[in-house]
Amino acid sequence: MLSREDNDLLCLTRAGSTMGSLMRRYWIPFLLSSELPNADSDPLRTTLLGESLVAFRDTNGAVGLIQNNCPHRGASLFFGRNEEAGIRCVYHGWKFDVDGTCVDMPNEPAESDFKHKVRAVAYPCRERGGIVWAYMGAPESMPEMPDLEWALVPDSHRLVSKRLQETNYAQAMEGGIDSSHVSFLHNDTTRGRRTDTNSGRYLRLDGAPKFEVVDTSYGFVIGARRLAEEDAYYWRITQWLFPFFQMIPPFGDGPISGHAWVPIDDEHCWTFSMTWHPRRPLTEAEVIFIEDGNSVHALKIPGTFRPVRNATNDYMIDRELQRSKRSFTGITGISEQDTAVQESMGPIYDRTQERLGAADAAIIQMRRRLMRAATELSQGIEPPALDPKVFRVRSVSMLLPRTVAAWPEAAREAMTAEPDRFFVSVA
Amino acid sequence: MLSREDNDLLCLTRAGSTMGSLMRRYWIPFLLSSELPNADSDPLRTTLLGESLVAFRDTNGAVGLIQNNCPHRGASLFFGRNEEAGIRCVYHGWKFDVDGTCVDMPNEPAESDFKHKVRAVAYPCRERGGIVWAYMGAPESMPEMPDLEWALVPDSHRLVSKRLQETNYAQAMEGGIDSSHVSFLHNDTTRGRRTDTNSGRYLRLDGAPKFEVVDTSYGFVIGARRLAEEDAYYWRITQWLFPFFQMIPPFGDGPISGHAWVPIDDEHCWTFSMTWHPRRPLTEAEVIFIEDGNSVHALKIPGTFRPVRNATNDYMIDRELQRSKRSFTGITGISEQDTAVQESMGPIYDRTQERLGAADAAIIQMRRRLMRAATELSQGIEPPALDPKVFRVRSVSMLLPRTVAAWPEAAREAMTAEPDRFFVSVA
Amino acid sequence: MLSREDNDLLCLTRAGSTMGSLMRRYWIPFLLSSELPNADSDPLRTTLLGESLVAFRDTNGAVGLIQNNCPHRGASLFFGRNEEAGIRCVYHGWKFDVDGTCVDMPNEPAESDFKHKVRAVAYPCRERGGIVWAYMGAPESMPEMPDLEWALVPDSHRLVSKRLQETNYAQAMEGGIDSSHVSFLHNDTTRGRRTDTNSGRYLRLDGAPKFEVVDTSYGFVIGARRLAEEDAYYWRITQWLFPFFQMIPPFGDGPISGHAWVPIDDEHCWTFSMTWHPRRPLTEAEVIFIEDGNSVHALKIPGTFRPVRNATNDYMIDRELQRSKRSFTGITGISEQDTAVQESMGPIYDRTQERLGAADAAIIQMRRRLMRAATELSQGIEPPALDPKVFRVRSVSMLLPRTVAAWPEAAREAMTAEPDRFFVSVA
Repeated sequence: MLSREDNDLLCLTRAGSTMGSLMRRYWIPFLLSSELPNADSDPLRTTLLGESLVAFRDTNGAVGLIQNNCPHRGASLFFGRNEEAGIRCVYHGWKFDVDGTCVDMPNEPAESDFKHKVRAVAYPCRERGGIVWAYMGAPESMPEMPDLEWALVPDSHRLVSKRLQETNYAQAMEGGIDSSHVSFLHNDTTRGRRTDTNSGRYLRLDGAPKFEVVDTSYGFVIGARRLAEEDAYYWRITQWLFPFFQMIPPFGDGPISGHAWVPIDDEHCWTFSMTWHPRRPLTEAEVIFIEDGNSVHALKIPGTFRPVRNATNDYMIDRELQRSKRSFTGITGISEQDTAVQESMGPIYDRTQERLGAADAAIIQMRRRLMRAATELSQGIEPPALDPKVFRVRSVSMLLPRTVAAWPEAAREAMTAEPDRFFVSVA
Repeated sequence: MLSREDNDLLCLTRAGSTMGSLMRRYWIPFLLSSELPNADSDPLRTTLLGESLVAFRDTNGAVGLIQNNCPHRGASLFFGRNEEAGIRCVYHGWKFDVDGTCVDMPNEPAESDFKHKVRAVAYPCRERGGIVWAYMGAPESMPEMPDLEWALVPDSHRLVSKRLQETNYAQAMEGGIDSSHVSFLHNDTTRGRRTDTNSGRYLRLDGAPKFEVVDTSYGFVIGARRLAEEDAYYWRITQWLFPFFQMIPPFGDGPISGHAWVPIDDEHCWTFSMTWHPRRPLTEAEVIFIEDGNSVHALKIPGTFRPVRNATNDYMIDRELQRSKRSFTGITGISEQDTAVQESMGPIYDRTQERLGAADAAIIQMRRRLMRAATELSQGIEPPALDPKVFRVRSVSMLLPRTVAAWPEAAREAMTAEPDRFFVSVA
Repeated sequence: MLSREDNDLLCLTRAGSTMGSLMRRYWIPFLLSSELPNADSDPLRTTLLGESLVAFRDTNGAVGLIQNNCPHRGASLFFGRNEEAGIRCVYHGWKFDVDGTCVDMPNEPAESDFKHKVRAVAYPCRERGGIVWAYMGAPESMPEMPDLEWALVPDSHRLVSKRLQETNYAQAMEGGIDSSHVSFLHNDTTRGRRTDTNSGRYLRLDGAPKFEVVDTSYGFVIGARRLAEEDAYYWRITQWLFPFFQMIPPFGDGPISGHAWVPIDDEHCWTFSMTWHPRRPLTEAEVIFIEDGNSVHALKIPGTFRPVRNATNDYMIDRELQRSKRSFTGITGISEQDTAVQESMGPIYDRTQERLGAADAAIIQMRRRLMRAATELSQGIEPPALDPKVFRVRSVSMLLPRTVAAWPEAAREAMTAEPDRFFVSVA
C-alpha cells in the first residue's frame, strides 16, 4: 500500500516531477528504428514523459527529437518539411537541425533575422538494438548507453516489438516483475505446450513459490523458488534494471525475453518486448511463433502499435474457454492477459487501496528503489546504474540443491552476459 | 428554483453524499434477473450510486455484488472466473464469495496466507419481480423489501424493462411525476388511438389540470383534476414512493404502469419500467404493444439497454410529422419523448435557472420530501417508508362529483393494492 | 509573447469575460441565411461566444436567437415547434417569440398563468450579405451594422461560405493577417497558376517583405512591401477591422476576398470567407473555382461545415507532393493549409512560448488593439469602430515608387469602397 503522495511520486514523470527527473538521467528507448525507415522519411509525432515531440531522420540518417510546436508561433513540426539536414516549419519556413539549432529564418528581412537567438528543445538520440533511444536530461550528465545484451547482439539474434498500453508505466512494470501471477494468469502456457517439460511441471506443481529479492548494482534480482525434485528447488531468476527494464528466464537453451516500460505520459506507456539469443540467430519457427502473437509480443492491428485484443473488445475474452479451465482467463496471448488485468486497474491505479503480500516482494522493492533514487536525486545524490557495464546480465532458471541458500552466488556465473558464455536453463 | 447547494443535495448520490446516504437505506433495483441467466454465468460490470461494481450469480444461484477492483492489486473482477461458489481474480487467483469473504489466496505460501484479513466490499442482493435488488447500507439498518405490487404478482402478470438514461436520476424522475406534460409532449397518444375513449377526451379537453399533492406514509399521492362531465371531474391519481418509485393510472381495467429511476452515477440513471395487472396475465396483444416500443417501455438497440432513438440521432425527430400536428414532438414513443426533453436539459440540470409554476407542484414536493429526509438522516432521524406494507398501493383514475374535495379519501379503497380487490379506472 | 493573463484576456469570450464584453458591442455574423431557408423551417442549435442558443426563422421570416434551455424547466428549444410566429417548447407548450417574450403558457390554469413574468434570453438578429448577424450586447448600446462592402453588394456579386475551425478565434485571425506566411505555407499558389503574373513573380522573389502597420478608425491597415521593379516596390495592402474582420487584396481586376473569425466557444470558431466584386457579378469560372475548394473557401463534407481535409486525417497531407517542392506543405487548398498549421498549435495556443519577429507586426498590433479596447471598455471607455461608415474600405495591391514612404496616403483613394470607384490591383 502506498500513500497518495508516494503513488504520485512513483507514477508521475512529467517535466519537473521527481520521478521524471530521475528518468531523464537514463537513455530511453522510444521508437523502433524501422519507424523512421530512411533519410528524410516522414516525421513522427511522439509523446515521451509527457512532452509532445516530433521525431525525424535527417538527410544524414541522424535522428532528431524536437519539440512539437515550432518555437516561432507554435505550428506543429509534424507537418514540417524534412529536407537538407533539418526540419522546416511549413508555416513560415523556419528550419531546425537535429540539435535544435535554428539554421534558417527566411520570412524575416535580413536586418531583423534573429535565428541565432532561437533554439528548439531537442534531445540527443542514438540507435542500438533496432531501437531509437533518447536522452532527455542535462547534457553534462549524459551517461553511456547501457550494455543490455539484447541491444548488442547481431540483428539476426533479436526480435523487438512495441505496443501501446493504456496505463501508467509503473502498473505495467509491476505486472512484469510479478512472478506469482504466472501460474494463474498465464496458466494456459504452463498447462499447454510445455506439459511434458520439467519447468512446466514445476510451475504447475507449486503455485505459491517463495520469493527472494536481492539488491544489485543495476537494480535487483528476484529468485522464485519452487518445489521441484526431492532434494532440489527450481529457481527462476529474473532481473529488474534501472529504471524500467526486466529480463525473463529462457526455457532450456531457448531465447531469453525482456521488456522495457517507457512512460508516454502519466496514463500511457510503451511496452517494448525483446526476445534474443546470445549465441545464435532466432530460428524461423521462433520468429513465426512470436509473430503469431503467442508470446510476450502482442498481436497488433496492422499499421499500429495497438493490440488487436484490447479494452474496447474486452480483450476478446472467451467465457467458454475460461470455463473449460484450459485457460484461466479465456483470453488468448500472454501479453494480452497481462494487459487485460493491468488496464482493468484503471490508468493510474490507486495504490492506497491495495493489499500486498509476501508474493509481492519484487513489486515492493522496485517501488522502493525507484522512489528512493528519485528522492535522493532531488537531494543532489547521483542515481544508481549509470555505469553501462552493470547491465551485462542474463536471466536464467536452474535446479539447486535444497541446501543452497546463497542462490545469487550460485547463479552468478550463469547470469553473466558474455558472448563466449552460455548457461542452459531448465527445459 | 433551487439554490446551487440544494441542486447538489438533490442530485449527488456518491458514497458519503447526503442523498447517497439516504438512498443506501433502501433496497435498490439494478439488474433484470435475466442479465445473470444462470448459475456461474458471466460476471457483469455495473455502476450503482457512483460505485464501480461487479455482479455475478454464483454456483448456488445467489447473486453477488462486489467491488470491481480486486482488493489485492486492483485487477477487475469482471475478468474473474465465476466458479465453485465464488469469483476468482484471474491475476493471482484470490477468490471471494457473494459476502465478500476471501475464501482462497493460492499465490501466497501457506505461512504468509492472510485471507482471513481481507474482505471485498460486497452488497447483499435479493431477487423479486424479475429484478435483482441490492442493499448498500449498513447491515444493522437493512429494512424489509418494499411490498410493491408489480414485484409480487406472478411473472405472467408483469413485464419489466430497463433502459439507460444519460441524465441524473432526479431529472428523469421529475419528468415521470410531471402530470401536466402529458397533454403536450405525449399529445399523439391522447390524440391517436384513444380518441374514442372518455379519458382521451378529457385529456385533450383540459390541458391545464389542477394538481393537488397529499403527503402519505410512502411519499405522496398526486391528484390531477380535469374538467370532464357537467357535474364531475376526471381525476388521475398517481403515487410517488420513496426513494424513486412511481405509479401511473391504467385505462379502464387495463394494466397499471410504473417506474423506478436508479442512480448509476451522477450523470446517468437506469429507468426501470413496469407494466402489470393485479389479477390476470398480460395478454399477447399487450405484450406485443410494449415490445414494439409504443409504450413507456423504450425500443432498445438489441443486446443493449440503450434506446434506438437517442441523443446521437436527435431521437429520430421527424420535423414533417411535427409540423403535421399529429405529433407535438415529431418523436415516436412515449419513453423516447420523455428522454428527448430530459436529456436535452443536460446531464445535471442547473435548477437555479428554472421557473416553476402551479403545474409543477408534484416536482416541488418530491424534492422537498427527498431533501428533507436526506438532511434529517444526516441529523440522525430515521428515513420514512422503511415499512414494506406502506408500498401496497395502486394508481387509478376515476370520475368524482365536482362537490367532492376530499379525493384521497374518496379514492382510498380504489388505491389499496390487495389481490382480491380491483377498481376499474376510467376507460 | 504574451503573459498568461494577456493570453486569457485575448482569447476568452464567454459572458462576463473582458473580451467577450467587447465582442458583445458589435454585430456578429453567425449563420448563412440559407441555414434557415424559409419561414417556420427547422430550428438550429448554435453556440456563440460560449452561449448555447437556438436559432429559428419565424412565420414572418424574422430570425430569432434564443436561449437553448426553455426558461421553464430547461428542455432544449431545439426540439421545439416553430409555428405561428414563435417557438413552442414541446415539454409543456410554453411559447416564445423572436424577442424572447413568453406568449403562451398553456399548461398552467388561467389563475396561475405567469407568462408576463417570464422572458427568454433572446438576441436581435438581422440579415445582410447572405448572413444572419446577432447583437448580443445591451439594447441601449446597439450600433448600426457595419458598412462592409461584401455585405452590401448585390447577391450575384458575392460568395460567402463558413467552416468550423477547432481553435480559438484569435489563433485563426492571427493566421489571416499574417502576411509573411503566404510565400511559404501557400507557395503552391504563387508557384503554380500565377507563375506568369507580376504579383506571382514578386511574391516568389521576396519571401521576407517589410511590414508596416498603420492604425485607422476601423482597426489598422497593413502594408507588405516587396522588391519588385528597379525603382518600384510591390505593396500588398490588407485591412484588419474591429473586432474580427479582414480583407485580402485582389489580383488585377479580380474579386476581393475577406474573412470573419467568430468565436463559437473558447476552443472553436466559425471562419467565414467572402469573395466579392464591387462592380460585377462573379463569373461562372470564379464560382466553380471557389466551389472546387481551390481558394480561401474550404471544401466541406456535404451537409456540414466541417472541412473534408481535417485534423482526423492529417489534412490528407501527401508527403510525396511535399517532397516534390511543388507544394511546401503537401496539403491541398489554401484554407486547408491555414487550418492545418493553426489547429496544430492546439485549441488555445500558449503564447507565453512564442518568439515573434518583425514579420509578426500585424499580429502584435491586432492583439494590442483588441486587448486595449477590451480593457478600456471595462473602464467605461466606448469601443472604436462603432460608426458603420468607417468600414467602407477595400484591400488593394499596387506598385509605388521606392521613394514613396507615405503609402497609406498614396493608396487612400484606391482603398475607398464606393460603388462608382474601382482601382485595378497588380495582376
